[in-house]
Amino acid sequence: MTTPVELIEAKKRGRSLSEGEIAALVDGVVTGRMSEAQAAAFLMAVWFQGMSQEEVTGLTLAMARSGRMLDLSPLGFCVDKHSTGGVGDKTSLVVGPLVAAAGGTVVKMAGRGLGHTGGTVDKLEAIHGMRVDLSVEEMLDVASRVGLVISGQTEELVPADRVLYAIRDVTATVDSAPLVASSVMSKKLAAGAHGIVIDVKYGVGAFMASAAEARALGELMARIGTDAGRSMAVALSPMDDPLGCAAGNALEVAEAVRCLKNEGPADVTQLCLELSTRMLMLAGVASEADEGRKAAERALASGQALERLVRMVEAQGGDPGCVEEPDRLPAAPWRIPVRAQASGYVHQVDARQVGLACVAAGAGRERRSQAVDPAAGVLLRCRRGEEVRAGDVVAEVHASDRPRAERAASMVSAAFRIGAGRPRATDALVWL
Amino acid sequence: MTTPVELIEAKKRGRSLSEGEIAALVDGVVTGRMSEAQAAAFLMAVWFQGMSQEEVTGLTLAMARSGRMLDLSPLGFCVDKHSTGGVGDKTSLVVGPLVAAAGGTVVKMAGRGLGHTGGTVDKLEAIHGMRVDLSVEEMLDVASRVGLVISGQTEELVPADRVLYAIRDVTATVDSAPLVASSVMSKKLAAGAHGIVIDVKYGVGAFMASAAEARALGELMARIGTDAGRSMAVALSPMDDPLGCAAGNALEVAEAVRCLKNEGPADVTQLCLELSTRMLMLAGVASEADEGRKAAERALASGQALERLVRMVEAQGGDPGCVEEPDRLPAAPWRIPVRAQASGYVHQVDARQVGLACVAAGAGRERRSQAVDPAAGVLLRCRRGEEVRAGDVVAEVHASDRPRAERAASMVSAAFRIGAGRPRATDALVWL
Repeated sequence: MTTPVELIEAKKRGRSLSEGEIAALVDGVVTGRMSEAQAAAFLMAVWFQGMSQEEVTGLTLAMARSGRMLDLSPLGFCVDKHSTGGVGDKTSLVVGPLVAAAGGTVVKMAGRGLGHTGGTVDKLEAIHGMRVDLSVEEMLDVASRVGLVISGQTEELVPADRVLYAIRDVTATVDSAPLVASSVMSKKLAAGAHGIVIDVKYGVGAFMASAAEARALGELMARIGTDAGRSMAVALSPMDDPLGCAAGNALEVAEAVRCLKNEGPADVTQLCLELSTRMLMLAGVASEADEGRKAAERALASGQALERLVRMVEAQGGDPGCVEEPDRLPAAPWRIPVRAQASGYVHQVDARQVGLACVAAGAGRERRSQAVDPAAGVLLRCRRGEEVRAGDVVAEVHASDRPRAERAASMVSAAFRIGAGRPRATDALVWL
Repeated sequence: MTTPVELIEAKKRGRSLSEGEIAALVDGVVTGRMSEAQAAAFLMAVWFQGMSQEEVTGLTLAMARSGRMLDLSPLGFCVDKHSTGGVGDKTSLVVGPLVAAAGGTVVKMAGRGLGHTGGTVDKLEAIHGMRVDLSVEEMLDVASRVGLVISGQTEELVPADRVLYAIRDVTATVDSAPLVASSVMSKKLAAGAHGIVIDVKYGVGAFMASAAEARALGELMARIGTDAGRSMAVALSPMDDPLGCAAGNALEVAEAVRCLKNEGPADVTQLCLELSTRMLMLAGVASEADEGRKAAERALASGQALERLVRMVEAQGGDPGCVEEPDRLPAAPWRIPVRAQASGYVHQVDARQVGLACVAAGAGRERRSQAVDPAAGVLLRCRRGEEVRAGDVVAEVHASDRPRAERAASMVSAAFRIGAGRPRATDALVWL
């Protein structure tokens, strides 16, 4: 039996751990036989030495098996979609209904926002009465009736990830591809979906700075899923600018509803159609991309996708009126315009800065325990590639009081990079 | 104010920390503001990235200042000697009396053994009644009367090292030169000696495997001491074979006494004279090596050094009869001979194996909390370079019961490397 110190020593020296050693390590972390200090030292050794594909798959499976593993087979083939996090990324609220309306079954356990990135659970909670703490049985029930359920991760799932993430969060070991991949994929595997689409974001507003890093992480996650017998599709997409015009919980729900009415910003709508197409292909609803795309477009144009969101909200105790009339979502008393500081073309709206401005406005959290203000956030009036004149209103900040609004507004103002000449277009999404 | 996570992140990225950042880190570790997990992650990052000389000196001083710093100036110039650990290293018991008898003042805080290496405190405790838990005031009193005191480290000194070492011990971060150097030197600086001689051991029985590693560690420690205003002398000496013939607490006290009677093994006596010479030079008792050497030899030949040990034992509550007649030291009921397995020359008696055999016999400990058997240990009858015939008795194992003795005996047997032809001589000691 290898002791915790021996496991740390082996990783420190760059040796690959066996499947049994990794399982013992995860078990030690969950039972406390491996102390937090030992786990932290191991995680830092992984940051430096990395892990082989076999190790990452072994770690992910051991983490997934540390708690309950959902069996979704009674629902038939289920699909899930995950984004590695960004600013203004409300795609789950659009993609889920699109796929469900087109004949897929979507079961998604979502997370909360942290730092400059938002989380789907926080967004859904902006809807009055909406429950995101469903039990597994409630999730299965909603999914069987609506074809779609999105809820927070239940405590029964992947306890190893909760322990490890809490340690990584305070020990500067978050930014390690094997640790990110195993954390994400262990939750996906435990949540039971048979087909999984991952959108790996890269750029200033994302966890991965470059497309190359995103590709490496994406390949790692694709291989883990495949090794575990799941059908995988992984996209790489840019996150230098926020996705869409809205960042902030209620503001993003409203924008998602606009997308489902076919009135949303083109970048959000196109990304959602692209992701939905692949989910429908994984689900076997479509055998080719063209067919999947058409099915998704039909679900959008017919209003059936929007109706599917309304039914999910209703089934999870939320007020469907908030979706039908987004004016009923929480609204902030303070709305401050942000004006362009120079004339020229918008070369970038720094996604990270906008995300941090959302935190300043009250829409996000710096620590896990913090509550968020559902009404707070940022609305962009002007985006990359558009021409502006100094003094034009380029954004609007929403907050519960003036100091927050003003602080956030000055951050949003600084997020606008305005220069001469048209900027280059953003990268197109790429499928691995 | 830099947060713990930022300090870890900086070291992870290979950035040097400022003096203030390092002081904040040590303070955080002692007060608990930096969790054990955070300290462990930091220590592992140091293992990979190392530390600049400025960082190591800063860390050492911050650790030393985390508790009481002794002021030995009422005693005049005091000298201390430290070995980085080995098997059969009883030099402190010989060097202290030699230097004191020659006119120096020796104040030493010593440690306990762990794993295959022994500790001076355990050795002294083999002497009936001997107190090694003197208060600072008691230490100053003994030193002023005898010119020599050796006791365990008091709880008031260097709390930061206790916290950090406990974490390093379980997180595979012991073997890092900056961490070893700062741990050793923080204790030496806090213990107050003005002149410090360090004997860095290298080889299979030592912490450092190679002379090059020992040199790097020695240079680091020398510079820390010099930066802190102390007079330093650093030796590098081999530890492939045990030092002397005895390993084990009472057995080593007896061998130290034989040395002080000028009847000890030549390697121990020569090393002790060499170390004493430098201590006398640091203390200003001798201005040149020849003069120091002669003073040490006189202290030995005249019996004054032995008398000094007797006085120290008496002053610390021990039975001086144990020193005058080592037969009165604890003796083991089981003594098993170890026989040569082959004929030829002894090429090596593996020091690490002998150290582990001592642990098996009961003389050492695997965990800090374990008690040791003062009587247990190993006596070598035959050493590197000697010719043996298969079946000759080459060693004797002492233990409290037969199973222990037999287990240890088979380990000692395996420690003997016997081959054809004379082996090369061991390296000579080198001063930095």
